Amino acid sequence: MIAEIISIGNELLIGKVLNTNAQWLCRRLTSLGINVKRITVVPDDLNEISNCLNETILRKPNYIFTTGGLGPTFDDMTLKAFSNAFNLELILNEEALKMVSLKIEELAKKGIIKHKELTPYRLKMASLPKGSKPLPNPVGTAPGVYLFLNNCEIYILPGVPDEMKVIFEESIFPRIKEKSKLKFIEKSLRLIGIAESDLSPIIEQAMKNNPGIYIKSHPKHGEGTSLIELHFSTMKEEINEGEKIIDKAIEEISSQIIKKGVSIEEIS
Amino acid sequence: MIAEIISIGNELLIGKVLNTNAQWLCRRLTSLGINVKRITVVPDDLNEISNCLNETILRKPNYIFTTGGLGPTFDDMTLKAFSNAFNLELILNEEALKMVSLKIEELAKKGIIKHKELTPYRLKMASLPKGSKPLPNPVGTAPGVYLFLNNCEIYILPGVPDEMKVIFEESIFPRIKEKSKLKFIEKSLRLIGIAESDLSPIIEQAMKNNPGIYIKSHPKHGEGTSLIELHFSTMKEEINEGEKIIDKAIEEISSQIIKKGVSIEEIS
Repeated sequence: MIAEIISIGNELLIGKVLNTNAQWLCRRLTSLGINVKRITVVPDDLNEISNCLNETILRKPNYIFTTGGLGPTFDDMTLKAFSNAFNLELILNEEALKMVSLKIEELAKKGIIKHKELTPYRLKMASLPKGSKPLPNPVGTAPGVYLFLNNCEIYILPGVPDEMKVIFEESIFPRIKEKSKLKFIEKSLRLIGIAESDLSPIIEQAMKNNPGIYIKSHPKHGEGTSLIELHFSTMKEEINEGEKIIDKAIEEISSQIIKKGVSIEEIS
Repeated sequence: MIAEIISIGNELLIGKVLNTNAQWLCRRLTSLGINVKRITVVPDDLNEISNCLNETILRKPNYIFTTGGLGPTFDDMTLKAFSNAFNLELILNEEALKMVSLKIEELAKKGIIKHKELTPYRLKMASLPKGSKPLPNPVGTAPGVYLFLNNCEIYILPGVPDEMKVIFEESIFPRIKEKSKLKFIEKSLRLIGIAESDLSPIIEQAMKNNPGIYIKSHPKHGEGTSLIELHFSTMKEEINEGEKIIDKAIEEISSQIIKKGVSIEEIS
């Protein structure tokens, strides 16, 4: 199963905010055996978002996750971009309206907002592309949105990390978990005393000998020594099975580099 | 001037590594008055990288920056992807070969590598797409690469953050700075006591009254109070001029919300 993530927001493109949302989603999806194939970051610009949505759906991923642009301000334009991209009318959704109204009343009770009037800015958060369903947002006002289009499950999430995470955990994770059969299994080694260019042919051979396993080396800067982190990963239905093939590859690489005086340590 | 960033590496898509490289580049480019319009993260897959390069150049940005995939391992395939995407032969570059050889000798002297032989894995780092120029990498082995294509300046950088940053600072920053006339100016306020949906029409009006200025609200979760950070930014040739129009917009918004009992604080 393939997923793509679209992160929406100028703050990401001026470097004001680090894209921790995308990393968090990548981790959660990977743990469910989902292969995240692309992350695209676009600005708060209607055409840019619409174009990106169109390009993404044409690559036919099984899942699309967007974050950002669901709030009440004029530059929150994700739902409008979906509407434009896929020619879906924005309709005031009864269920979403209930969610937003309840939140507004709650905020008014706490004195955070002065009036409970459903202004156009507030109604916007409940106006969803035709055919979509709202996902409850227990910690914010704008609901998440679910849309099934072109055989792709689309989850439209807020950009505020707390809101994005809780909607994912409560409304999305259980749904995907039920369908996904694969698990992600990984192990890492820390190597001291070998250069990446010397390690490279050994990794390449180990990957050929152990199909389905992915091995990646990350050189780290040390003080005059060469320090490399080596990550082994695979996706299998059974964790045992995955660990077994990773252990075999680790054994194979270790036996070759230990002769060269390289120090090897398993890290978590 | 428009830029796009392409971040290459599986580690970013499984959530193992946070994309701090893209954030750092966004900050530096924004400070130079460059508008970063898109970040795309793709895996270590030849077709995915090539496709992304082709799509990106068709959007005609003035600059493309790629990070990752320049090292000696088999899954470092950025240069090959450039070769495939734009039909540019990979040629052993004399200047790049000198850079790589010197590094290899240095590493051998320090005892980090055992032999100085220029294996295919090492030669790969000096085999550049036809027409490109290497950029010195003072802290690593693989040089950066500069390529001018379809009226677009392309900078191909390593994924190791230290290496990426020093190549940018030494070989790229001065070049762009000379050409770019604009500067990025920003100020931020912290507001307590107003909901985003109440603030929204006020921001929208202030943006209409002050063209060229961008105002973005970021709601933060507080304990029962509503806390919003409000960012004002603009790009102008003169810092003074930018500050003046931002101050005018701040004045305009403040005078309206202060009446509603909102607390306003300038933050850096």
